[in-house]
Amino acid sequence: MTEPDKRRRILDAAVKVFAQYGFYNSKVSQVAKEAGVADGTIYLYFKNKEDILIQVFIDSMDEILRRQEEAQEGLEDPVEKLRVFAETHFLSVAESRALAEVITVELRQSSKFMRSTDMKPFGRYLGMIAKIIEEGQDAGAFTRTLSPRLTARAIFGAIDELALEWAMGKRQSSLSDTCAHTTELFLTGLQTRPTSTPSSGGKP
Amino acid sequence: MTEPDKRRRILDAAVKVFAQYGFYNSKVSQVAKEAGVADGTIYLYFKNKEDILIQVFIDSMDEILRRQEEAQEGLEDPVEKLRVFAETHFLSVAESRALAEVITVELRQSSKFMRSTDMKPFGRYLGMIAKIIEEGQDAGAFTRTLSPRLTARAIFGAIDELALEWAMGKRQSSLSDTCAHTTELFLTGLQTRPTSTPSSGGKP
Repeated sequence: MTEPDKRRRILDAAVKVFAQYGFYNSKVSQVAKEAGVADGTIYLYFKNKEDILIQVFIDSMDEILRRQEEAQEGLEDPVEKLRVFAETHFLSVAESRALAEVITVELRQSSKFMRSTDMKPFGRYLGMIAKIIEEGQDAGAFTRTLSPRLTARAIFGAIDELALEWAMGKRQSSLSDTCAHTTELFLTGLQTRPTSTPSSGGKP
Repeated sequence: MTEPDKRRRILDAAVKVFAQYGFYNSKVSQVAKEAGVADGTIYLYFKNKEDILIQVFIDSMDEILRRQEEAQEGLEDPVEKLRVFAETHFLSVAESRALAEVITVELRQSSKFMRSTDMKPFGRYLGMIAKIIEEGQDAGAFTRTLSPRLTARAIFGAIDELALEWAMGKRQSSLSDTCAHTTELFLTGLQTRPTSTPSSGGKP
């Protein structure tokens, strides 16, 4: 097994073990067993159990960022961009329930971790959503009254919550329904649109 | 100290200790010290550390549900109801940063807990949002194309994410701005509204 293969194998094993037993109840020796390596080998690649979780997170965020960038390629319409973003997030989560559980549940266990500089990839992820919103505002497709930063965070929160529900197996809707639904909410909102607006010159 | 006082005092101490050290790093003896009771006293009221966290959660959800019900009293307009709901959630979180941290961060640490029947108060909370949406749909104020259940979950996710950011102290906006912003996003959406609609009879 080459060095990068071994590192990858340990990370994959960690995802399985953390998802099954929870991060705090998991032991490094369980990860080693699942990966088929000696306990000591783990420490050639990682400082401790927390370091493994951080690397799982960084690797996964890198992977989802790469997928998002690939999915956005060639898209022009801001509405389409936002739809594709939500879809890619859901698909990535659906693909690996164990990974989703580790990222959405286990990752939040340590508030120390949430405050660390290792949250940079998360900042990049939020930045991608904010950029789609800014571009949409510049193109006149999105309203300028909403802050791209706050809106990006709200959209991430909503997508993440629905993805969590999905990962936990409480699925009352199909993936594509949930996805279409979420983007419709962000795009057009709950309020019914008036049949005419002040600028249209009063009632028809 | 009467019995209910002692229980309350232990729970308040637990919130402080869990928020400072994280749930898994906290010891029951630290909670006892903070509450000013003997270690053994804790076990008269709670089975173990996890039971304390569950009771903190149930008590807090009961309190926030009570506040939400009180805040909704006498309101008729669905839009106003949704605004007040978001506002009350943010105000409750802002009032106790420690409690917010325990609820939004520490609570997610155990996926076992997330799956337990103790999540009932959370279901009631989601149900309150879904009911506001259903009533709004019946009154013709909200579009019927959105599912109340999925929308409630998406709205909770967005509010919770922004409340988490607030609780973590990364505040780039005032509480009222964040609040107004979030409800505007749900109500009117990102897309700019057309200046006239097909039913208004063309351009003015």
